[in-house]
Amino acid sequence: MIRMNEINEITEVILTQIENGKYAEARRSIIGMESADIALLFEEIDRQNLLVMFRILPKEIAADVFSYMPNELQQYIIESSTDREIKLILEELFFDDTIDFIEEMPANVVKRILSNADNETRTLINQFLQYPETSAGSLMTIEYVDLEKEMTAAEALEHIRKTGIDKETIDTCYVLDNNRILAGSITIRKLILVPETTRIADIMDENVIYINTHDDREEVAALFKKYDYLVMPVVDSEHRLVGIVTIDHIVDVIELENTEDLQKMAAIAPSEKPYLKTNALTLAKHRIPWLLILMISATFTGNIIKKFQDALQSVMILAAFIPMLMDTGGYSGSQSSTLVIRGLALGEIKLRDFFRVLWKELQIGIIIGVTLSAANFLKLYFFDKTGLMIAFTVCITQFMTIIIAKIIGGTLPIIAKKLGVDPAIMASPLITTIVDAAALIIYFTTATKLLNL
Amino acid sequence: MIRMNEINEITEVILTQIENGKYAEARRSIIGMESADIALLFEEIDRQNLLVMFRILPKEIAADVFSYMPNELQQYIIESSTDREIKLILEELFFDDTIDFIEEMPANVVKRILSNADNETRTLINQFLQYPETSAGSLMTIEYVDLEKEMTAAEALEHIRKTGIDKETIDTCYVLDNNRILAGSITIRKLILVPETTRIADIMDENVIYINTHDDREEVAALFKKYDYLVMPVVDSEHRLVGIVTIDHIVDVIELENTEDLQKMAAIAPSEKPYLKTNALTLAKHRIPWLLILMISATFTGNIIKKFQDALQSVMILAAFIPMLMDTGGYSGSQSSTLVIRGLALGEIKLRDFFRVLWKELQIGIIIGVTLSAANFLKLYFFDKTGLMIAFTVCITQFMTIIIAKIIGGTLPIIAKKLGVDPAIMASPLITTIVDAAALIIYFTTATKLLNL
Repeated sequence: MIRMNEINEITEVILTQIENGKYAEARRSIIGMESADIALLFEEIDRQNLLVMFRILPKEIAADVFSYMPNELQQYIIESSTDREIKLILEELFFDDTIDFIEEMPANVVKRILSNADNETRTLINQFLQYPETSAGSLMTIEYVDLEKEMTAAEALEHIRKTGIDKETIDTCYVLDNNRILAGSITIRKLILVPETTRIADIMDENVIYINTHDDREEVAALFKKYDYLVMPVVDSEHRLVGIVTIDHIVDVIELENTEDLQKMAAIAPSEKPYLKTNALTLAKHRIPWLLILMISATFTGNIIKKFQDALQSVMILAAFIPMLMDTGGYSGSQSSTLVIRGLALGEIKLRDFFRVLWKELQIGIIIGVTLSAANFLKLYFFDKTGLMIAFTVCITQFMTIIIAKIIGGTLPIIAKKLGVDPAIMASPLITTIVDAAALIIYFTTATKLLNL
Repeated sequence: MIRMNEINEITEVILTQIENGKYAEARRSIIGMESADIALLFEEIDRQNLLVMFRILPKEIAADVFSYMPNELQQYIIESSTDREIKLILEELFFDDTIDFIEEMPANVVKRILSNADNETRTLINQFLQYPETSAGSLMTIEYVDLEKEMTAAEALEHIRKTGIDKETIDTCYVLDNNRILAGSITIRKLILVPETTRIADIMDENVIYINTHDDREEVAALFKKYDYLVMPVVDSEHRLVGIVTIDHIVDVIELENTEDLQKMAAIAPSEKPYLKTNALTLAKHRIPWLLILMISATFTGNIIKKFQDALQSVMILAAFIPMLMDTGGYSGSQSSTLVIRGLALGEIKLRDFFRVLWKELQIGIIIGVTLSAANFLKLYFFDKTGLMIAFTVCITQFMTIIIAKIIGGTLPIIAKKLGVDPAIMASPLITTIVDAAALIIYFTTATKLLNL
């Protein structure tokens, strides 16, 4: 029994054992641990000890730990291994984990791996590497259990006993007809519960929802979420079963897609590589484009100020409220766009909800606009003692800016999706520029009227 | 075999059948469908037909469909059902789904449900309702398979055959000692593969990582992601097994936590309720607090402008660049804070990485600062033909603001986490205010020096 907070203590003990060269002791302690924890532990030790420890682990554990390692360590291990060792790792790895790591290796390492794979595996690897990285094909594994329609339950269980040991999941088995075309699915639970002589064809579930190799991984993730699946079958264009996708890879996809949406909403070019493992130049390159666009589009707001320069010059105090108006307007817009973008991503908001969103944001805009500008009026007039007309100018601008920001922030992502543009990209710089410009135009127009400039 | 885009067409056909009163035909078409799709279909039909269809479905399908329905429909069905019908639904529902829906029902509905549950279930429901909503306890279900150490593989399989039919997952079974204390786990795969006379105690995995009822659901989700688990056992304070948590509920938790982080980063009070199902007043209430704080803290930036009013008045053109400097500065900061907050949430960035992040953001700040201010200088001096000194003032301010924004955006979330404050809350309003103030102070100080104001 391991309580999660004990893991750190165990790790400390093992690290000391390894540092003191007590490899056999360390090996005994490690073998009871989860592969994910062993991989984390291996990140902490120096490379020489890493190789020693990796080599003395039982090969099935070593391969599983390998699949949890960061790419640099995987590369290091492959480069430091003999051909025989590479063969052993490849034999033990689940096929989807093999593909995952090969996709991240440099060409010379891939070449070395391919030359050590048997013919069949090499052909499969080459085939899988051709699936686009965001397709169901690149998520799937080939370790599924396939049964025939004509088998009895007893024969099916016997088949599973013979072939099931290396399979990724045997909770759901797939039934194929003689051309390997997907005919149905059956859970192991059902196989155990029915009489031994029952024919698979009579008890299988024929209404299997399947995916194609070229389906987008985001859509596949949506299916898993909708149906609470643990596994889904993947077929090729002739409806032949070619693999399965399991929920653990879907969880990774969900997190990746969430990170990607967040990055886009923060005006960053999306990237799958972790922050600390990306160098400063690459990170900077991801961030510069939207900042440049924002900078250039700000020429527009600058010109509005220039145009009203005389009005501003005669009542200089107006300048002091520009940051406040821009910030509350900008945030009002991004609050709306964030919720709507998220709602679209989760499927809670559909394109046909355009007018419902518009109406809701209009109401919200009025409530927030009244609240904020009333509070602001009290502050300006009674506390800051600005004149009545200036307080009016600021508050009218704030009220109208918030309503405009809410409507633009709420509807622009839906319009983007309708036009086939990623809603997350619509989040901020564009909305900011529109809201800024609207705020300034309303501000100076109101000021000119109310203050007779 | 159902391809996903065929589902809409099938739904259309069934809707027409129901509208024409062809209930038996509709029933036949529905029975082959996935419960999640039937629930979506039921949202489209009017309430009278909904009750008819719900009642004529086989009761195990009806209960499963019920678990996928939105809360309003669940409430309507309970309120329209006889006591006997409620009993049937409760018997067929998985226990975690029962808890999920009871948690969302008004008190009178909960009372009616409890009065129709048998004694044992009622006690369990009351116990589960006491777990905090964000704890592992409220995520778990009681439908697990428990085995005894002394059983043989054959006895265990026989036990599963007898008791396993209603269990949420039988892929992993849990082994208990005589005080119901968790002793180990074993997969059904292993049970099938070993000789029939093997003792469970000899083949079970004793290194089971478990969670406690009071563990936070976000930490539980992190464990599922780290270890690629499909299910985890939950124990009480005496280490007795009280339930299991399955991956489908964890996927929901991951999405909820992601939504919550996004909301906080967009300066919105977090809420689990979908956007379209929340009324405008509630949505407005979630958004007003941070906007008010932002408005009040903008007094600070306003005062800076007031202080430099004379300088601004003598070179009015300076006002035109304020929006651009604030926007590029603000976005520079939120780019950094977004990546660091996400990295912290995914565990890719740790507290001890403070100086690595600081150093990285400093480098990024310099690269972006040089790029943007150089581009800006070319635009201002050659294209807009502002004077040399004004171009210098704007570009120096932009350069320094970006560096400050990057450093504050990158480090503030880590400092927040260190202080036990949610990093996501640190995302924006605070950073915006600091960056705005810094930009304005640098701007006017530089202007005063370079332009001799």
